[in-house]
Amino acid sequence: MANVAKKVSWSGRDRDDDEDGRAGETTPLLNGTGPGAAGSGRQLTPSSFLRIGQLSNVDLNEDIHELETEVPRQRPNEIPHNEKLLSLKYESLDYDNSENQLFLEEERRINHAAFRTVEIKRWVICAMIGILTGLVACFIDIVVENLAGLKYRVVKDNIDKFTAKGGLSFSLLLWATLNASVVMVGSLIVAFIEPVAAGSGIPQIKCYLNGVKIPHVVRLKTLVIKVCGVILSVVGGLAVGKEGPMIHSGSVIAAGISQGRSTSLKRDFKIFEYFRRDTEKRDFVSAGAAAGVSAAFGAPVGGVLFSLEEGASFWNQFLTWRIFFASMISTFTLNSVLSVYHGNAWDLSSPGLINFGRFDSEKMGYTIQEIPIFIFMGVVGGILGALFNALNYWLTMFRIRYIHRPCLQVVEAMLVAAVTATVGFVMIYCSRDCQPIQGSSVAYPLQLFCADGEYNSMATAFFNTPEKSVVNLFHDPPGSYNPMTLGMFTLMYFFLACWTYGLTVSAGVFIPSLLIGAAWGRLFGISLSYLTKGSIWADPGKYALMGAAAQLGGIVRMTLSLTVIMMEATGNVTYGFPIMLVLMTAKIVGDYFGLYDMHIQLQSVPFLHWEAPVTSHSLTAREVMSTPVTCLRRIERVGTVVDILSDTSSNHNGFPVVESNPDTTQVAGLRGLILRSQLIVLLKHKVFVERANRSLVQRRLKLKDFRDAYPRFPPIQSIHVSQDERECMIDLSEFMNPSPYTVPQEASLPRVFKLFRALGLRHLVVVDNRNEVVGMVTRKDLARYRLGKEGLEELSLAQT
Amino acid sequence: MANVAKKVSWSGRDRDDDEDGRAGETTPLLNGTGPGAAGSGRQLTPSSFLRIGQLSNVDLNEDIHELETEVPRQRPNEIPHNEKLLSLKYESLDYDNSENQLFLEEERRINHAAFRTVEIKRWVICAMIGILTGLVACFIDIVVENLAGLKYRVVKDNIDKFTAKGGLSFSLLLWATLNASVVMVGSLIVAFIEPVAAGSGIPQIKCYLNGVKIPHVVRLKTLVIKVCGVILSVVGGLAVGKEGPMIHSGSVIAAGISQGRSTSLKRDFKIFEYFRRDTEKRDFVSAGAAAGVSAAFGAPVGGVLFSLEEGASFWNQFLTWRIFFASMISTFTLNSVLSVYHGNAWDLSSPGLINFGRFDSEKMGYTIQEIPIFIFMGVVGGILGALFNALNYWLTMFRIRYIHRPCLQVVEAMLVAAVTATVGFVMIYCSRDCQPIQGSSVAYPLQLFCADGEYNSMATAFFNTPEKSVVNLFHDPPGSYNPMTLGMFTLMYFFLACWTYGLTVSAGVFIPSLLIGAAWGRLFGISLSYLTKGSIWADPGKYALMGAAAQLGGIVRMTLSLTVIMMEATGNVTYGFPIMLVLMTAKIVGDYFGLYDMHIQLQSVPFLHWEAPVTSHSLTAREVMSTPVTCLRRIERVGTVVDILSDTSSNHNGFPVVESNPDTTQVAGLRGLILRSQLIVLLKHKVFVERANRSLVQRRLKLKDFRDAYPRFPPIQSIHVSQDERECMIDLSEFMNPSPYTVPQEASLPRVFKLFRALGLRHLVVVDNRNEVVGMVTRKDLARYRLGKEGLEELSLAQT
Repeated sequence: MANVAKKVSWSGRDRDDDEDGRAGETTPLLNGTGPGAAGSGRQLTPSSFLRIGQLSNVDLNEDIHELETEVPRQRPNEIPHNEKLLSLKYESLDYDNSENQLFLEEERRINHAAFRTVEIKRWVICAMIGILTGLVACFIDIVVENLAGLKYRVVKDNIDKFTAKGGLSFSLLLWATLNASVVMVGSLIVAFIEPVAAGSGIPQIKCYLNGVKIPHVVRLKTLVIKVCGVILSVVGGLAVGKEGPMIHSGSVIAAGISQGRSTSLKRDFKIFEYFRRDTEKRDFVSAGAAAGVSAAFGAPVGGVLFSLEEGASFWNQFLTWRIFFASMISTFTLNSVLSVYHGNAWDLSSPGLINFGRFDSEKMGYTIQEIPIFIFMGVVGGILGALFNALNYWLTMFRIRYIHRPCLQVVEAMLVAAVTATVGFVMIYCSRDCQPIQGSSVAYPLQLFCADGEYNSMATAFFNTPEKSVVNLFHDPPGSYNPMTLGMFTLMYFFLACWTYGLTVSAGVFIPSLLIGAAWGRLFGISLSYLTKGSIWADPGKYALMGAAAQLGGIVRMTLSLTVIMMEATGNVTYGFPIMLVLMTAKIVGDYFGLYDMHIQLQSVPFLHWEAPVTSHSLTAREVMSTPVTCLRRIERVGTVVDILSDTSSNHNGFPVVESNPDTTQVAGLRGLILRSQLIVLLKHKVFVERANRSLVQRRLKLKDFRDAYPRFPPIQSIHVSQDERECMIDLSEFMNPSPYTVPQEASLPRVFKLFRALGLRHLVVVDNRNEVVGMVTRKDLARYRLGKEGLEELSLAQT
Repeated sequence: MANVAKKVSWSGRDRDDDEDGRAGETTPLLNGTGPGAAGSGRQLTPSSFLRIGQLSNVDLNEDIHELETEVPRQRPNEIPHNEKLLSLKYESLDYDNSENQLFLEEERRINHAAFRTVEIKRWVICAMIGILTGLVACFIDIVVENLAGLKYRVVKDNIDKFTAKGGLSFSLLLWATLNASVVMVGSLIVAFIEPVAAGSGIPQIKCYLNGVKIPHVVRLKTLVIKVCGVILSVVGGLAVGKEGPMIHSGSVIAAGISQGRSTSLKRDFKIFEYFRRDTEKRDFVSAGAAAGVSAAFGAPVGGVLFSLEEGASFWNQFLTWRIFFASMISTFTLNSVLSVYHGNAWDLSSPGLINFGRFDSEKMGYTIQEIPIFIFMGVVGGILGALFNALNYWLTMFRIRYIHRPCLQVVEAMLVAAVTATVGFVMIYCSRDCQPIQGSSVAYPLQLFCADGEYNSMATAFFNTPEKSVVNLFHDPPGSYNPMTLGMFTLMYFFLACWTYGLTVSAGVFIPSLLIGAAWGRLFGISLSYLTKGSIWADPGKYALMGAAAQLGGIVRMTLSLTVIMMEATGNVTYGFPIMLVLMTAKIVGDYFGLYDMHIQLQSVPFLHWEAPVTSHSLTAREVMSTPVTCLRRIERVGTVVDILSDTSSNHNGFPVVESNPDTTQVAGLRGLILRSQLIVLLKHKVFVERANRSLVQRRLKLKDFRDAYPRFPPIQSIHVSQDERECMIDLSEFMNPSPYTVPQEASLPRVFKLFRALGLRHLVVVDNRNEVVGMVTRKDLARYRLGKEGLEELSLAQT
């Protein structure tokens, strides 16, 4: 334990450790395997819970505690700082099948041909996920394009009218009001109907794929709010993108289709019942997330890599191939529909919601001399990204403290919308950057005070959807923007985007990041061009692309998948190497300067990273596990089960099952593991027999009974058990998982972590040399160790 | 056991099951947990081996056997058919760290900063792997280009000379002799110096990454032979490519660099000692394989996906990012050096050994109507691929039976070289396909009987390196080839490639596959163009590309990684969707028609696939495991250890360690696992104490002592242990892994498989409810179950 730098609060562990460890009146024993524990720790009378590892003798307990673990036991009074907390309110998903008799019987009944049918169903579902995700992306794109077009035309007409006769403040008012009212609707539905639809949804999907259950995250209602919300945010002119939310949308679609029913709509199509468990559902959600990325950026390979990076801990060739299939179908659907919509039916030129346009490798190739320049841009992107994240972190803290009421959140969103319009207007108004209208591809050229036949260049950046602005910055010919325009735009947009990120609206941060980066990248390219006296290689568009990559890398800090996404979005593999260098530099620099970037959103979620902290070999399962553990016996009294499940102070979800015979003094080893959800179904179906009539055969359940209840199992309170029934006995043998994964107490934390993470477990039983249960390791026990600035840190656990 | 369709030979199991299960005089007991087993199975006297699970009472054993397992016990006399065998001669790699005290002490000593140094070293090694792999690829490319150029110039001059004055048979003789002699050298070095360098090396690397130790596969000598061999094969005009072998070369480079020493050169640079274990070495070999793919095809992302598909069962973001880094560096190095070599220093136009050339998406875009055509091409590719594999399978069988002597192998290779030249010559001679020389990009235009200013079109296909022929087929303008030329070429090259694949030369099958496919694809495109009366969309180059993808997919049956490799090689993401469709169709059709494609090479290698066979839930660990198991006690007599290790009839590599106290009757549970290699090092360093002087402290070893011996541990025969020393005691506590992974007997085969595969284990101990050892599961126990045509099959085990 020597390496643990900060023990913030042991009380957090001792008192609140109630996912699977149970703390009663006695102080828990960190090491429950002493000889005393073996002798007196188990009270096998039917009337009391079986708490293995807990001693009845408090004094002895304390002694052993003092002897065996020299842990500082001061209990600080102040509330621990927010950052060092790990929330206990999130449940875990279980990516390990409960291999009980029912499951095995079903699997054994299924023959080879039937497995092929299941496999074909998986492919069909993936195709449907791809198609639907593509269609949703089309819908968003077309609606945004039309509504935003309408808005910009109205405002442009108004500005054109008032430029001549004065009174442009009316135009400003019109613009600001339009934006604020659209954003108000978008914010209202999110804040009041489904708060989980706020933001891009990427952190939530990451958590889901990681194994953390975020309530409502894959519901149909969330999808509807998300889609409407993102349309309204973009139309409302906020500094946001519609790409990030596609990942969430794809995931919801996948979760919905694969289960063959919608709980929101109360429809059960009675199909795909085989897939109603966490393992299968996760695979489909991975495919949905990939399809979302693919539709957003036209990057099918990037989508697959995103899913793998975030979710699938165990790489499986068939699964990956299916995910890729969904991705490809998704971008192909989007491409076909948008091509038809745009009239050029068969040319397939819109693979994603954002297309970076065609980078001609001959015109815009790079040379080896430019590599150091790209690396320098990566450094800049990393620093700016760290700054962005730091500012946003403080803002988020402020919001958590002061802007937690929904109506305040709506007001803030409206304020941001109005300010965005105002800033844009003032910038355009003050800009004197006029460019000839001829030969440019500007959608809504604002003349304002420019000469006839010219337009205001600042307006191409501000008076446009961000996607279009990015593409303009990449591809407009050299000289389309004054350096001053670009500098002012970067500065303003940086702060606007920073303020916008985290508002209670559905919106993504990808596009604003790209836009900021493209602006300063282009500025950088122009400066280079000046410095080198207009050398041909200093194409501003190329530097805009590298700047965009650097800024995005500095903010989101993704690695492989982002490189591939950027490569695919440019449609050109030539830029792969410089993009990789830029992203890598940005990430390294950002990580060095920055805060715990991603973890801002996730700080109290029990998120499992790739590996245990490097210095955690000093901890063993014995120190990490929760103890004592509430165990059940193989044949248990119904009343005991009900009492255990009803105990609100503890809310365990998995219970080791141990040998049930109370007559023998034989050592009772672990026999299996049963889940709360399974017990609930058993109680609901009254699967038990009277104690006197042990010869009576318990009612048999089918796997279908468990599947029908998945994933929303009723609470124990909703199940009525009469006093007579409480005295009945329930035989768990058939329903428990007889081969749960176990680790010995001596296993080091990295070893436990690897097993837990690789197999996507929810419960891992710690046993001693005689296979007796001594503790339980769950997600929170592993997630609470973190590598801080000063070494290994341990987070406190809290119910918040 | 009902689903097991064929029990080919139980004798194979009972007699030869000697990696970790030990079969003595008594018939082994499939279920060793009966009450009798617990009582009499352990003989704790120091003079006998501890064989847990084995009964001393043969009769009882037989009874229980008959009672508990109803296995047909006929022992067929004929030798089982070759296909149904699983070889026992391959050892396994262990991707699980042995977390013994030494290891933990070292890990605990290393602080956070030191871990950062280790991490930086990893990046440096990856950069070096990338650079060296790129340089090796450059070397191969430049040497091949020059030698092949020399050869073709000599032959061309000769042909030109004799065309005028007659006597072209001299030219044929010259060509055939040149080819045969070059191939002879290439075949000689492979056959006599390092046979493992034959072929592409991809199956060997797949096995290595899967965890099977193929002797010599990552040695420096292999690399040298491989590089020379591939140069000679390509220069010798065989129907082979130099791309596949790059994957093997990259892997050897990676293995060499990461270990910081070369056993072949007997040099130890005393660096990177931390990485001297299977886990770390595998990670670097993955990076090397990826760098090889990247250099071969200019496909860094494809390389990463190849490595992941084949090897890394547990996806880790940092690892993937490093692999990608190595890939990128590799293609970048190759690109830079080749650009400098070709004189256009900074344009970076050669990302890989083969470049498909520039596919202009505007000129060669596809439309939705073409998708069914592409799918049809996939079907054709699948059928042709299956045919290719079937022919090659029969040929391989023939070779195994009759051409197993090295000199015969050399003769066959020479014969193939001469025949290839002859076929090419005859085809060129008979062809009347003359094309105007102007505007074409043919390197060695053969005029032959064409008019002045024209060249023989067949010669562009045959009289060229296969890489150049592929690119010509993709990009030559419509009309460059007669349909007749293409048809004849496809037919001839198909059989030549089929005959060549499997020769004792270093060579890859990628390029010949692409070439065959490109030829019939172009033929298909021309036919389409005729049928549609020269529609603009029927560009033959596009169909050549799709044909190449279809044929390659039909032969090698890779999925995601191949799609990405093809996408990257075309440098254009537009073709992603059709390429995916074509590859998917080709694979499905090929799998339906074909034999067990990949398994031809691997048939008796204990290769673990992604998942256990779908219908294998009927089997449990109890039926799968090897039993009885030779166990050691925690404090063991040296003589016993030596005897166990010396027992040649069994060749176990891992031994469960159980409680050592023979005085108590207490149940003795599993305490740890120790490896043969560790025991060897202990014996070598005489780490034991005299029995009388138990108070003496055993000599302490350092982790370095184990690392220095890695990976070539000496055999037990080389260690002399005197009679006195035999009576000493050895304490294993400090060296054994105290927390080996275990499974209960009830766990189903898919569950055991998942644990084993996900964590890359070598030994998995099966325990009963009291944590007593009842069996051991190793790679061969899992690899022997296979899904055959009629359901689950079980392979026999054999020492071949």
